[in-house]
Parts: sequence; C-alpha cells; structure tokens
Amino acid sequence: MISLASAKIPFNAYLNVFDCLWSERIGRGKYVDRFEKLAAEYFGVKHCIAVSSGTLADVILLSTLKELHPGKDEVILPAFTFIAQANAVLWAGLKPVFVDVNDDMQISSEAPYHLKEKTLCVFPVHLIGKSAISHMFKFTKTVVPIVEDCCEAMGGVENGIKFGTIGLAGAFSMYPSHTITTGEGGLIITNDDEFHKIARSIHNHGKWGGADFNFKYLGTNAKMTNLQAAIGCELIKTIDDVNVKRRHNVSLYNSLLDKNFYASAPHCYPVFYDSQKDRDDALKVLADYGIECRKLMGCVPDSEPYVVRFGIPRPDQYVNARRLANTGLFVPIHQNLTKKQIEYICDVIRITPFK
Amino acid sequence: MISLASAKIPFNAYLNVFDCLWSERIGRGKYVDRFEKLAAEYFGVKHCIAVSSGTLADVILLSTLKELHPGKDEVILPAFTFIAQANAVLWAGLKPVFVDVNDDMQISSEAPYHLKEKTLCVFPVHLIGKSAISHMFKFTKTVVPIVEDCCEAMGGVENGIKFGTIGLAGAFSMYPSHTITTGEGGLIITNDDEFHKIARSIHNHGKWGGADFNFKYLGTNAKMTNLQAAIGCELIKTIDDVNVKRRHNVSLYNSLLDKNFYASAPHCYPVFYDSQKDRDDALKVLADYGIECRKLMGCVPDSEPYVVRFGIPRPDQYVNARRLANTGLFVPIHQNLTKKQIEYICDVIRITPFK
Repeated sequence: MISLASAKIPFNAYLNVFDCLWSERIGRGKYVDRFEKLAAEYFGVKHCIAVSSGTLADVILLSTLKELHPGKDEVILPAFTFIAQANAVLWAGLKPVFVDVNDDMQISSEAPYHLKEKTLCVFPVHLIGKSAISHMFKFTKTVVPIVEDCCEAMGGVENGIKFGTIGLAGAFSMYPSHTITTGEGGLIITNDDEFHKIARSIHNHGKWGGADFNFKYLGTNAKMTNLQAAIGCELIKTIDDVNVKRRHNVSLYNSLLDKNFYASAPHCYPVFYDSQKDRDDALKVLADYGIECRKLMGCVPDSEPYVVRFGIPRPDQYVNARRLANTGLFVPIHQNLTKKQIEYICDVIRITPFK
Repeated sequence: MISLASAKIPFNAYLNVFDCLWSERIGRGKYVDRFEKLAAEYFGVKHCIAVSSGTLADVILLSTLKELHPGKDEVILPAFTFIAQANAVLWAGLKPVFVDVNDDMQISSEAPYHLKEKTLCVFPVHLIGKSAISHMFKFTKTVVPIVEDCCEAMGGVENGIKFGTIGLAGAFSMYPSHTITTGEGGLIITNDDEFHKIARSIHNHGKWGGADFNFKYLGTNAKMTNLQAAIGCELIKTIDDVNVKRRHNVSLYNSLLDKNFYASAPHCYPVFYDSQKDRDDALKVLADYGIECRKLMGCVPDSEPYVVRFGIPRPDQYVNARRLANTGLFVPIHQNLTKKQIEYICDVIRITPFK
C-alpha cells in the first residue's frame, strides 16, 4: 500500500521522547514551551500556542473572536472544505455562512456580499496547501477580522507572506498526512497580544491570572502533550525541506499527467473526473492497485449535520463546491515517495478516465 | 517541591513508544485499539473509546445524548466540581442545572426536584475519587439517563460496582495527577451499542459508515494518539495497585491528622479551614515549604464564565458548594510519595489552623 502519510522521525526526537518518559514529564513540559518558541520564530510571529489538534485550533480561533466581539455571530467560509473547519463554527456557537468556491477551490468573489453587521469574521482556508492569500485581499478593505485555516498548508508562502500571518491569527494541524506531524496536534499563531491571551486561556479550561481555579472564559482542554512537542521540536526544522520535496513531487505528477497543479505547501495531488461515477470507479481502481486515496473534501452544506440544522441547499447554491466534491479525488504526495512510486501511481491514474 | 503528580513509566512502555516512532505510527495505530480493548476488559464493559482528554470525553458523552434525545437540553450536575465538567455542558450546546452539594461533596437530595420534561440527563461526578454511586440511586427510579464523570476516579469501586459502569456511560481522564496518565488523555466506556457508535463517530469528525468524507453527526477531533496509548497499554495494568497505594497514603494522612477521609480511587487529600483567609494563608505556607497544593475545586456558578451567561447566583444558592470552594485545599496523595514526605506534609499542615 502506498500511503497518504509518511513521517520519518529524526534521531533527536527519539532522545527528546526518551527524556519526557524518563523525567516523567509527558503532559505539560519544557518541549511544549520550546516548540511554541521555535514555531513563533519559524513563522515570524509574536505568539504561538501548541494545541491538541488543528480542529481545536480552529475552534479556539473562533471562540477567541467571539469573546472579543460579543453579539457578532456569522462566520463567512467556503462551502468546499474539510468538515472540521465548518464544525469549528458550530462548536463555537456561531453561524456558518457558506460561500461557493471558484474552479481553483478558493472562496468566490460573491463572498464580500455576505458581509453584514453580524459578521464576526471571514475564515478562509489554504486548502490542500494552495494559497488563499490573493482571495483574502477581497476583504482587506473591510473592518471584519480574517482568521486563516492553514491546517493543510504549513509553511506555505505567497509573495513572501507566510500563510497564517496575514489575518489576525492562523490555525495549523500536525495530523500525520500534513507537512509535519506530532501524531495529532495543532498550532495557533498571532501577533495580537490580547487575542493570544484569550486563546491561551481558552485552550486551558479558561484559566486566568495564574491562580488555580480562577476562570475567565469558557475554556476547553486543547493542551498539547510534552511527548508530541518533543517530536514537533525536531520536525519543525524540516518544514521547508518537506515542502520543497512535495513541490518536486507535484512537478513530477504534472509532467507525467500533463497538468499544472500548484500548491506552495502541497497536501496531496488532486485528480478530477467528468462524473461522480467515474471518480468513484477510479477510487476503487486506485485502492485495488494499492494506492491510498480519498475523495477530495466535500460540499459541507450538503452533509447531514448541516442539512439537519439548516435544510437542504438549493440546487443553484454551491454549484462549484458540489462539482469539485463529486468529481475530485486525491493521491499521495508526501516527501518520502520515490520517483518509481509516483510513476506507478500515474500509470494507474491513466487507466482511469481522468480529466 | 513535592509534586501533585508522579507516574513512573514502565520499561515496556518505552518499547511501545519506540515501536510507534520506528514504525512511523504516532497518530492512529494498533496501541489505540489495544488500549481500548484492555480498558474495556478492565472495566468489564462492551465498548471503550480512547480520547484526547477527560474534558472531551465529557463533551462527547453529552453530545451523544443530545443526538439520542433531541429537544431535551437540561443537564443536572453538582455546583461543586472542576469547571471542565460544567464547560462540557456548554460546549455541547446544553443548559447546566446546578445543584448544591452535601458536606461530603456529593449532589444534594434536592437534585431529583430539578428533573423536568426537558432534562436530558443527570451528570454526577466521582469528585477527587469519592464514590457518587449511592447518590446516583436517587435517580435510578427515573427514566432520565445518568452519565458519570469519573475523571478523577479511575478504578474506583463501591459495593463491587465500578465507577462509570452504573450509568449509561462514563468518562475518565488520564491527566498527570490522575490514577494513570497518558500525558493528556481520556476514556469513554459504555455497554450501549448505539451510544458507542454515535460517540465514536463524534470523536472522529462525525465520520460514519466507513466511507471517507461521509459525516452523520457534528463531530470534533478527540482522537488519542498511538504514542499516548502506547503508554496507556502498560499503565492500565497498574490501576488497582496505584489505588491501593493511594488509599494507604490516605490512611497515613488520616492517622497523622486525626481525620477519616475516604475515597475509593483517591485523587488528592483534602484539608479544610474555618475561613477563606485561613485557607489562602495555608496555601502560601504549604507552597513556601515546597508542597504543591491547590484550592479544592470551585463553586462553578460563581465563576466568571457562568456569571456572564446566567447572572450572579443568589446568596442562598449553592451555600455548601461555595463554603467548600472557599475553605478547602488539597495536598499530594500520589502513589510514589514516601512515608517521610507525608509526615513532612502533615507537619506543615499542622502549622496551619486546619479544621
């Protein structure tokens, strides 16, 4: 099986993990502090909070904004995304305002028309590692904050601007298939002191002011373990190298399949079909040939948790999101793939009627 | 510093962790499955789900019940507890109905009077390892489900009944100061097949039916990592031994301080004072003498996140909860304390005007 994820663990990470076990500091500990410092340096930001997952990073971004702007409750986000991003809006007790996407998977130009008095923020996503930055500029003349979901795009850059640093705050994931991994794990970055203080409180039960059992905000437990951070401290040094290798793999796919996909921090390689049937058949073919693959995200408003809450979308809504969701799949792109493996994957893709 | 937490990591756990790193399976993996199986066997239940924290275990218990009983939204719980339990009610989008506690920290006999048409469940807590089972029998003649917060009480037993197995489901935590630890971590146990299926879905983004990107419930990411489970698989074998040692430590405290505290799965040793000032002074004295200690939980309805949402409680509400919160503290009880250390802690406690 050619897997979607691969992460070689550096030797020093073994030593760090051993140190955690030996010192009995597997929960909170020095590697968490060190990882946060290294991440803040890497992104060139003032504050970084290591958390338990990208999903909870998203939840905390939105919960923090909610504390900063009570009364505002609408979040503008693309209809085509991984469901965790949209779920974060609901967990934070807010209302998702879905916007269709363009062919390039980015939030469409209708987005600014959804800005209202009650809009809390715009919540773009750098999906499968592609930059959403140029699309974010649609909003930069407004007074609405932007927070970035960079869960699939760690280390991505456009015109010298790192993903996660243009908005008020950014959320990252270290899930196994992502640029670097801590098993599960996430990061929140921001340059805003107040945002940072509130987010840090929320990630630790809402604790405030140092005193034990003094709580200011509705908090949760999103703390990263020392064990995870012990690995993160070493893998964070590899982000740029991983992305170089993944972009190289994308180029190889492009040349073999005569395509021109580009992502600054590639999460996967997307392949499209004319129909849902062709795509579903292709998923089976790829799996039969031992290649791990997935449907390319989903049209979130069409999924059951959203239909139950907000009703079935009209057929003329989210047309592009639905088409991408129904006709796309993705194959592995990770940094440890060999040229031979990619050639093999492309040979199998060529059996299928890809577009 | 005499710490509140200590967990010696068994040699086999080092090997398991090494195996995770070497096989590059630090996220989902075989140790998670094995840990769930071992835990189900230990508790004698059909289903166990390993999760990222006790806090999220609580959130998932309630979210699962909400899916099972739409329209019901009130959760009856004690006012005196760790705030994470109450926060779980809010995160699940439900309404907490706080009930005062007795002197023994258990939900008072007024609790059944709060049962209403809209009551979703009763949510007792085995606080600091003390059994809530006898108090749960106040509700067993009703048709309202009971779910148990056992976060501070893993391995506790009353009359042969294990905590977490009398209600519909139980939530446990593996935070460092708890009976066993995986750094952060939690467990959900249940004998109910449908409850289990929904809870398992919610802990993994609401995924359903095996297909990727098919979602049925509002899910989150509460997955435990293979790394954490690799440690849990070994420490779970130590639960009963840890509790024997901790109960032994409680006995030593009792004899030295002429008290009769009892907990089946002790989380800490509580000490009470006549006034908040005496307690706060004692916290400083203990800290000055190098003893890690904490205020004994809080009266949750008095805390800021709840006052903001539900207003300031009347002075005649939660009287016991407030008194316990203002006059109690706790000192270490963990299994690796020496007799000398406990004698030292008691010497310091005796400097303070404890009750």
